[in-house]
Amino acid sequence: MEKRVGVLLSGCGVFDGTEIHEAVITLLMLDRAGATAVCMAPDIDQHHVINHLTQEETGEKRNVLVESARIARGDIKAVKDIKASDLDALIMPGGFGAVKNLSDFAFKGADATVNAEVKRILNEMVSMNKPVGALCIAPATLTKALADKQHPEITIGNDMGTSAALEAMGGRHFECTVEMAHVDKVNKIVTTPAYMLGPGIKDIAKGIEKLVDEVLSLI
Amino acid sequence: MEKRVGVLLSGCGVFDGTEIHEAVITLLMLDRAGATAVCMAPDIDQHHVINHLTQEETGEKRNVLVESARIARGDIKAVKDIKASDLDALIMPGGFGAVKNLSDFAFKGADATVNAEVKRILNEMVSMNKPVGALCIAPATLTKALADKQHPEITIGNDMGTSAALEAMGGRHFECTVEMAHVDKVNKIVTTPAYMLGPGIKDIAKGIEKLVDEVLSLI
Repeated sequence: MEKRVGVLLSGCGVFDGTEIHEAVITLLMLDRAGATAVCMAPDIDQHHVINHLTQEETGEKRNVLVESARIARGDIKAVKDIKASDLDALIMPGGFGAVKNLSDFAFKGADATVNAEVKRILNEMVSMNKPVGALCIAPATLTKALADKQHPEITIGNDMGTSAALEAMGGRHFECTVEMAHVDKVNKIVTTPAYMLGPGIKDIAKGIEKLVDEVLSLI
Repeated sequence: MEKRVGVLLSGCGVFDGTEIHEAVITLLMLDRAGATAVCMAPDIDQHHVINHLTQEETGEKRNVLVESARIARGDIKAVKDIKASDLDALIMPGGFGAVKNLSDFAFKGADATVNAEVKRILNEMVSMNKPVGALCIAPATLTKALADKQHPEITIGNDMGTSAALEAMGGRHFECTVEMAHVDKVNKIVTTPAYMLGPGIKDIAKGIEKLVDEVLSLI
């Protein structure tokens, strides 16, 4: 049976949505491994829209599900329509959208609130003992979502401020290099720093490939 | 000396801009091969904006350079600021943007007009005997842009209607499978069908890797 892996998106673009390279490389590595990606995103407005050329806010309104559909070539569902029983595993790519749209960690740090549907699907996955992977800054939203239930080992690389905020939310931070993934075998949580470290697309691809392999092996 | 390869984008999303998977895999393969990607796009409005969830037009206005910047993580220039002498080669990913924004081939077929700056940079490349790669439907815009100068061998896979339009514009179409790239050694033009054939991201990645290798070997 083909493994079905949710890919939880948060828009389309590093500064206000999903980091595009991380999402596409996740989809590539899943397909190469023979797994089926099930793309999903919450059907909510983005926190804001950033012009990626100037890094300024544009004042536009865009919807997270609609913009995420660009990465998924239209093959995507609202998170509310997905249950953990539909999936064997779930992966969250990074980008600021993961902490601006899926939660407000980018603005509130350890006091963040996680989107209710995102919190629901992540907790369902963990309750069913199904593996969850998170890239880049996405472990922040994951840690907060699971805080009532578990205190996973996670990595976002080596940034002191961010790792302190993760520990304040109940995570146990481990330093990690970009070409590696940190595996919490007990909680079945796999994380990799990706563009929290960079420096380039070939570097993050190594860590994402490891993460996908580890997530699939934990199913 | 590191090879500098232009990556000519046309927005961000398969239905109204650059096909995101094709662009990201092009960037990945260039980085793995030790080449530097120089992302660029014309500073013009998109022909239209398509909601990628419903495939309907939204009526919004978006700029091709600004949206392309999402794929390039902000590291992108306007085509008008790039000369062929800055580059060793150039690659055009596909997606409808390549034939809606870089030209109007999607609407006018063989009677298409190519954006003036896009036509200029492509003709400069060819005049300097520098290789050009094109993915998916992008060979249509490339063929039209070069029609006064050369009649390259190109592929868009095996679609009869599209290949007939390419031949009407002076191209010589060769059938090709998704995991391969067609090489015109005389004109230094390399093309691969990518999502003109699909079916999946791992399949198009094979052809794009071949295309990148062939383009770099022609420098």
